Amino acid sequence: MAENKLLEAFNRSSYPVAGHGKRTVGVLQEALATVDAEVDSDVYGSGKLIEDFQAKMADVLGKETAVFFPSGTMAQQIALRIWSDRKGLQKVAYHPLSHLEIHEEDGLKKLHGLESVLLGEKDRVPTLADIQKLGDDVACVLLELPQREIGGQLPEFAELEAISAYCRERGIVLHLDGARLFEILPFYQKTAAEVCALFDSVYVSFYKGIGAIAGAILAGDESFTKESKVWKRRHGGDLISLYPYILSADYYYEQRVPKMAQYMEEARELAALYNECPAVETRPEVPVSNMMHVHIALPKEQVEPIFVSVCEETGVGLTASLREVDADYCYFEVSIGDRYATVPKEALRKAFALLSESLGTVAR
Amino acid sequence: MAENKLLEAFNRSSYPVAGHGKRTVGVLQEALATVDAEVDSDVYGSGKLIEDFQAKMADVLGKETAVFFPSGTMAQQIALRIWSDRKGLQKVAYHPLSHLEIHEEDGLKKLHGLESVLLGEKDRVPTLADIQKLGDDVACVLLELPQREIGGQLPEFAELEAISAYCRERGIVLHLDGARLFEILPFYQKTAAEVCALFDSVYVSFYKGIGAIAGAILAGDESFTKESKVWKRRHGGDLISLYPYILSADYYYEQRVPKMAQYMEEARELAALYNECPAVETRPEVPVSNMMHVHIALPKEQVEPIFVSVCEETGVGLTASLREVDADYCYFEVSIGDRYATVPKEALRKAFALLSESLGTVAR
Repeated sequence: MAENKLLEAFNRSSYPVAGHGKRTVGVLQEALATVDAEVDSDVYGSGKLIEDFQAKMADVLGKETAVFFPSGTMAQQIALRIWSDRKGLQKVAYHPLSHLEIHEEDGLKKLHGLESVLLGEKDRVPTLADIQKLGDDVACVLLELPQREIGGQLPEFAELEAISAYCRERGIVLHLDGARLFEILPFYQKTAAEVCALFDSVYVSFYKGIGAIAGAILAGDESFTKESKVWKRRHGGDLISLYPYILSADYYYEQRVPKMAQYMEEARELAALYNECPAVETRPEVPVSNMMHVHIALPKEQVEPIFVSVCEETGVGLTASLREVDADYCYFEVSIGDRYATVPKEALRKAFALLSESLGTVAR
Repeated sequence: MAENKLLEAFNRSSYPVAGHGKRTVGVLQEALATVDAEVDSDVYGSGKLIEDFQAKMADVLGKETAVFFPSGTMAQQIALRIWSDRKGLQKVAYHPLSHLEIHEEDGLKKLHGLESVLLGEKDRVPTLADIQKLGDDVACVLLELPQREIGGQLPEFAELEAISAYCRERGIVLHLDGARLFEILPFYQKTAAEVCALFDSVYVSFYKGIGAIAGAILAGDESFTKESKVWKRRHGGDLISLYPYILSADYYYEQRVPKMAQYMEEARELAALYNECPAVETRPEVPVSNMMHVHIALPKEQVEPIFVSVCEETGVGLTASLREVDADYCYFEVSIGDRYATVPKEALRKAFALLSESLGTVAR
């Protein structure tokens, strides 16, 4: 079955369960409709529009200063470069499935000449013990909270505190990949600033759970963010106008950060439904943010038609795609957003009854 | 006198003569108002929205393919890196006042490890003779048309043809910094494709004469642009959504490219007015695009109050700032856009009568 058959069914579904909505031009139009046409653009990183948002985010994250970047890829490479230069060391450590390792075409290595040390194992979050095994030649450890490529898993907060204390004692810089930082605050029952206090520098994204257009913030002390602006220009990220991203980031931040606890509860409800189906388990079993991975111990070509049928017969779009792990195993990612609350409970119940029954047939 | 007194007077003026208008959020709102809210975002460089615009620009520039970038800084570093890698040489040549040399915090050197060879002299455009002096260790020559930092000067088209033929014969790659390419087509009386045919790769910008929000196109053959997309991701420029820039680039491209001949004629009219004033000369004397530099052989602190007075007494904003060259010399840049045509001729005549008289007083 063609991949796009599932995508097409999902796109036609009455009740897609994941995300906030389609990524259309309307998302930006809605945000801009709230802004006066006479408001001045930012200009190469200066101006009230960008400076106000940077100050707001510095405050939220409990850091001295913050800089708006077009992307997290750019912001994080730059953070690691700055710390490496300061330490005079070329190695940085992160999870084997970090965005930097698998989604950035080795920009860190090809542009900055840095080397990566992979922390711990692919299928779990890094531990203090992993970090204690690092040599003296590592400038910086990057922790991603939650660890996206394994379904959004998190260490205990006490473990984080121990890691932070250890790194400070040993002079290892600790950087937070907080692409989904706001999404985990309800689980930790901490403010963003309380989490960020454990780290020397922090990146957050605005188009994951917040659902804006694009863009990122990098925060830290003033000498760090000042240096990051020089690298931002070198990367070609110091655009004359970043306001389309900034204005939408601010608009959707205000709308959705207060709903992160709701999204997590909904993710937990959905995970429970999945975990009752034959051959299915979610990671984490109980979500700690708005996201999870749904693993199915069956061949993708058997599972795909089932999700298409569920979609077509109940109107509930559970997923737009399946990723094959091997001949007997597939999975997909779910991130809960505004859409979940609009799915009628009865439709959801019917969808899972059908899914469970159909998977049971092939799993036998 | 504080720099911002002139800026403030300019910002309050009834008839600013340069540019299209203020860089406000309204510029984007206007472009987006023409787009259906249901149009899908581009997604990491894919999707109809970005692919259609790239195909349109490839066609306009007469190249096989084109890639949209958030900035020219990113696009051009990447172009030079690709050509250098292919040649196995680390040196690239360009004008001493190239954007790469003076406005990018040495990104080309710090991120890509390339070395620059400065072509010819600061105050004139590079010639074939300059290029003939280059050693065998230069991978690529970048020509900027027009040469912005010297007022937007151009070589004769025949000289360009000779340079292109020489580079092809010698196996030197020729790249066009066409940040203001559309602005010079009326002078050369050529299509964009006819100019670009002399070059192996081309960059064009959308927020100079075109006046969009930000963004750039890099064009060349398919293997070149394919490689450029990998580097775009490494730089952190492969954003999930670039549509705010693409849609506005397309909107203002359609509006303003047909007016480039008008802008040039207006720049020439304005230059003639300046060249009649004491101590003033424009570079070029007769503009070859919509831009020029206005040089004044007088101290900045004497000139600044004169421009403030002209602005306050006639309502005509001639410039928002002056750059000091030395104690006896200053200059400013003018780029003509939509505003010029809205300045009443009588106000302009009065402004230049006052400017000429006032400069005559201090120049004595």
